[in-house]
Amino acid sequence: MATDETLSLAAHLPEGVRCLGVLSGKGGVGKSLVTALLAVAFARKAHSVGILDADLTGPSIPRMFGVRRAEAAIGERLAPARTSHLGIRIMSLNLLMEREDDPVIWRGPLVAKTVEQFVTDVDWAGVRYLFVDLPPGTSDVPLTVMQRLPLNGLIVVYSPQDLVGMIVRKAIRMAALLKTPVVGLIENMAHLVCPHCGERIDLFGAGEKPNAAGTSGLPVLASLALDPKLSALCDTGEVETYDSNPFDDLVLAVSSALEAREARA
Amino acid sequence: MATDETLSLAAHLPEGVRCLGVLSGKGGVGKSLVTALLAVAFARKAHSVGILDADLTGPSIPRMFGVRRAEAAIGERLAPARTSHLGIRIMSLNLLMEREDDPVIWRGPLVAKTVEQFVTDVDWAGVRYLFVDLPPGTSDVPLTVMQRLPLNGLIVVYSPQDLVGMIVRKAIRMAALLKTPVVGLIENMAHLVCPHCGERIDLFGAGEKPNAAGTSGLPVLASLALDPKLSALCDTGEVETYDSNPFDDLVLAVSSALEAREARA
Repeated sequence: MATDETLSLAAHLPEGVRCLGVLSGKGGVGKSLVTALLAVAFARKAHSVGILDADLTGPSIPRMFGVRRAEAAIGERLAPARTSHLGIRIMSLNLLMEREDDPVIWRGPLVAKTVEQFVTDVDWAGVRYLFVDLPPGTSDVPLTVMQRLPLNGLIVVYSPQDLVGMIVRKAIRMAALLKTPVVGLIENMAHLVCPHCGERIDLFGAGEKPNAAGTSGLPVLASLALDPKLSALCDTGEVETYDSNPFDDLVLAVSSALEAREARA
Repeated sequence: MATDETLSLAAHLPEGVRCLGVLSGKGGVGKSLVTALLAVAFARKAHSVGILDADLTGPSIPRMFGVRRAEAAIGERLAPARTSHLGIRIMSLNLLMEREDDPVIWRGPLVAKTVEQFVTDVDWAGVRYLFVDLPPGTSDVPLTVMQRLPLNGLIVVYSPQDLVGMIVRKAIRMAALLKTPVVGLIENMAHLVCPHCGERIDLFGAGEKPNAAGTSGLPVLASLALDPKLSALCDTGEVETYDSNPFDDLVLAVSSALEAREARA
């Protein structure tokens, strides 16, 4: 929704940037992983990509890409870190901390203000796609991002559990209340293929379950399996080297959904 | 740490209650599941147990136990819901909502204030063990709970990923800074046993990994496997009917660690 507030922050971002938030409501369903995979997929298609890590108290992005420090300032603005393989630009509070496990014990309004500064005080020049990795919940940061950032849309991540679906629907309803468009859903940890016998394992109970976020009527853009190899690459900062099919199809699915939504708007 | 602030809230709780927070820092590692399992384990040993669901924007506890509504008020205080099998008393914001998927779009200070009211305005009379399920992060609610609630200790939940370990250590360092004692750690989603071939699958990469929270020097009280059957029971509100060994040993492990810590204090 273009309000005076979003327009004032938009002025700090490069013209024509597409700004996509990755949201879930629930923690631990793979928002950061999906953010990272989206960024890698778009960067592989020769797009200039940035990640704004808005999960200030639980930042996962720097570790996944193996970056540790923000670069020196460019004039009065802070330069994002750049990943080694694809040159993805990253800003995260963990890049500014002395130790990566230092806790950020801040009240919500300060946390939300810092996210705004990641737009106003960081040099995102040249970035064409900016992915915003949101924290769990529906409190300060998601609220600030939806109210203030010029989002072209949200990608909502969920895992196929009823319990998770209930909490994810809270986030989808929040987006609707704040008139932030949801581009589509990405299912994560749908299943696991046993590395020993090759059989499929449904991680959250057997049988065909209804799509946990199904009642939303939103398109499911991708369904990702839990892959221990991918988890290991995230632990060692090598998420950029991951190779898999569903992941390559993500760019097309997200771009098409974004265009379809914009054509309707 | 007994301060004037914690003492003022403690006056609202029954005398002699043991108050245990379940914390992680990271979302989705199973805080609510561990809270539920602890509550069930203690209730099975004939203890009177309550759960204060402090994850206001992502409440999982009511769904796991199949409770939907708080009971009528007792005088001026709100009565917690009671679970059908073990009579565990539960207070959660979701018990007070019209719809369970209504989002709570509140700034942090309001969220934190509500958690305090779950102590001052709820009738916990008779409860001997009160488990507090904390939200992810190190912002408003964990801060308020550690500063204001009369906690006997924290149980920290983690999953065996380096990435998770880094964020869990933030929470452990926060507890140390706020002088809140950590009783011990519980590892969750350590592995999965393939239901087809019976082989063990390490969910987050192969091989023996160092204990993600190992550098903390804290005791690991239990290690829980990912069990699709348990996930299904949580989805259908039947977590109280779950039966497994590690889970029964939890009471002993937690009680012993709590006593050991109190003997040292």
